[in-house]
Amino acid sequence: MPEFLKLIPTQQALEILLSSLKVTVSTEIVKTEHALRRVTTHKILSPIPLPPFPRSTVDGYAVRAADTFGASESLPAYLRLIGEIHMGSAPGFDINPGETGIIHTGGMLPNSSDAVVMLEYTQSVGQETVEILRPVAVGENIIKIGEDVKTGEEVIPGGVRIRPAEIGGLAALGIMEVEVARKPLVGIISSGDEVVPPTMEILPGQIRDSNSYSLSALIERTGGMAKIFGIFPDKYETIYAAAAQALKECDMVVITAGSSASARDLTSRVINQLGSPGVLVHGVSIKPGKPTILAVCDHKPVIGLPGNPVSALVIASLFVVPVVESLLGLSSTGVHTKIQARLSTNVPSQAGREDWVAAHLRSTFLGYEVDPIFSKSNLIFSLVRANSMIRVPPDATGLSSGEMVEVHLLPGQE
Amino acid sequence: MPEFLKLIPTQQALEILLSSLKVTVSTEIVKTEHALRRVTTHKILSPIPLPPFPRSTVDGYAVRAADTFGASESLPAYLRLIGEIHMGSAPGFDINPGETGIIHTGGMLPNSSDAVVMLEYTQSVGQETVEILRPVAVGENIIKIGEDVKTGEEVIPGGVRIRPAEIGGLAALGIMEVEVARKPLVGIISSGDEVVPPTMEILPGQIRDSNSYSLSALIERTGGMAKIFGIFPDKYETIYAAAAQALKECDMVVITAGSSASARDLTSRVINQLGSPGVLVHGVSIKPGKPTILAVCDHKPVIGLPGNPVSALVIASLFVVPVVESLLGLSSTGVHTKIQARLSTNVPSQAGREDWVAAHLRSTFLGYEVDPIFSKSNLIFSLVRANSMIRVPPDATGLSSGEMVEVHLLPGQE
Repeated sequence: MPEFLKLIPTQQALEILLSSLKVTVSTEIVKTEHALRRVTTHKILSPIPLPPFPRSTVDGYAVRAADTFGASESLPAYLRLIGEIHMGSAPGFDINPGETGIIHTGGMLPNSSDAVVMLEYTQSVGQETVEILRPVAVGENIIKIGEDVKTGEEVIPGGVRIRPAEIGGLAALGIMEVEVARKPLVGIISSGDEVVPPTMEILPGQIRDSNSYSLSALIERTGGMAKIFGIFPDKYETIYAAAAQALKECDMVVITAGSSASARDLTSRVINQLGSPGVLVHGVSIKPGKPTILAVCDHKPVIGLPGNPVSALVIASLFVVPVVESLLGLSSTGVHTKIQARLSTNVPSQAGREDWVAAHLRSTFLGYEVDPIFSKSNLIFSLVRANSMIRVPPDATGLSSGEMVEVHLLPGQE
Repeated sequence: MPEFLKLIPTQQALEILLSSLKVTVSTEIVKTEHALRRVTTHKILSPIPLPPFPRSTVDGYAVRAADTFGASESLPAYLRLIGEIHMGSAPGFDINPGETGIIHTGGMLPNSSDAVVMLEYTQSVGQETVEILRPVAVGENIIKIGEDVKTGEEVIPGGVRIRPAEIGGLAALGIMEVEVARKPLVGIISSGDEVVPPTMEILPGQIRDSNSYSLSALIERTGGMAKIFGIFPDKYETIYAAAAQALKECDMVVITAGSSASARDLTSRVINQLGSPGVLVHGVSIKPGKPTILAVCDHKPVIGLPGNPVSALVIASLFVVPVVESLLGLSSTGVHTKIQARLSTNVPSQAGREDWVAAHLRSTFLGYEVDPIFSKSNLIFSLVRANSMIRVPPDATGLSSGEMVEVHLLPGQE
């Protein structure tokens, strides 16, 4: 079994692949309201200052701060009320010394006024006079022009995923179109003489293809698009023809091998012929997923996944997801939520290998607790029952009940 | 300001709203490959056992375990090789005492065989004999029929969000259509004399509507659909007409108020007229977002949000998101990732009020650290710069630098 001669640690394997990829992100323009989860391709600068005029942060009276100095309940300052600033329009007046105007939260400050006294600290005296019961400092209860964002300031960096907050920020600036990374197209090829399409009735010895569908969903969730090429028998020529076609049409190719050792070996030979440099990593020191293949063929990433559904999904989370993110030009993958949780049961493991164990994470009054779900790695429903995976580091010979361990949420769990 | 007379804690406010809602989830059928993030409406039972036949988990030889008892390197068991089990088909033979057959990982076990000996522990002797160098127990290296899932077993509960793992699981069972909750339609109404559509040039005193867009994105992300009804001036009749129309067309209505106190009061009067019972909560002890309104009108949830963009997005995350989830029939909101992080700077706060402070969460070698981003609550870009929010519990009078604090990721951050 040639693939097992040299097992490479997970992180190192990923770095070998990523460092061999020269990514050129292709772009498209989308409407801001459709940009959720898309990735910016360059930094976005503000065309205007925000707010574009000085605004009051409270309901009260616009004043010159100097007119309020020394004011108190026993010795109020008396200001002449000259008008009201209506929401959504420029004030019709300036504030001269000794004058004030009614202003609402969000209202535009009149010229020459430099602070707002909250309604609570004032008292009307007739129609034309206001008592100010507390002094305000210059700038108090005001947002200055450009205090949120200055003209030309970078508001969103390139290479970040657009969230609801960014969409709101862009709308506030009047930027209703945004350049984002085109969704990378990932071709998915399934192989295995025993694998049939899920729509087919199965005969003895056959299983339905689940990987094409779970992988498509994972790729879609990451921000890519998947194209399912179908299921091919374990023959060099057929798999090669399908993979070559997928490589031509797509930005990336993922091949799930049949589950036998010879089928896995076939995948490796096919990938090596697809383009140079070919296979970079064959065999990762991880369970499940040892026979993983990482390759670059003609500048496009090609990943060979183990055929069993749990290994395929775990390995795809660890390798396919970051590669799709790299094709999107994501400069950071955001906060990766590793949760520390108390382990409920011992987890055995072999030193020198990273183990991933399906698990159920629970939030308790005492913090997070996690229950490992022990099962053979071919059982897809062990993942359906799980909400997370426990990572057993390569240098550990198992984890003990009661220990705090590193738990990763399953894709889509958050 | 009547809204501030009785402030209710966040969690209690949400419970008041949710307990007043009688949710009937309406359903639709979607293709399994399009079901990512959708919510199941009833439990799904397996129509078949999985695996549907006993499978080998290794490459090796199918045997009767009894034939291998006592076998060792010095005293191997000799078995007669009667054939090979080809992937994807039923074995063409049974295993009688003293016989064996070549089997591959995932291959179907022949009748009467009850274990598989790994290739590594065997040796061929000529074409017809295999030496077995280690004994195997009954069931060793085998997955039994139904070991993953039994016929009729619940594979996916109702009220859960479909992840890539569920999509794979459904495909494995040949279930290519699934009944899910129809996406709740949420009508969004923006009010405020100062607010103009983001596509318009702004005049002095005007600001662009960002809330309609950030809220739509948040609702879409949660699994709902948003319909933007537009911006309405702070007049009772216009807002009432728009809200009544939205309530008629949609499953839920969200109204963002103008920023002045009188505009907020207007929203409350409008909502009370929309339908019974009307406003349930007016004023939540939270910063930002005190003037939040929670209501049920004619069996539909109606939420009034503060107009300033940061408050609107924070309050929507705390109230609109769980209500949309409830309309989807989600039985659990999954693992809510509260992260414990070390605080880098003191955060002042007022006791008796829950404070949410925009923050930047960083992963360091020593664990998570979090930097609060101090800003006035009207600055939308304070949220764009943030990846998380620090929660200051109501009973705290501030948080101290170095303390472990509760951090929530911003929607879309994961």
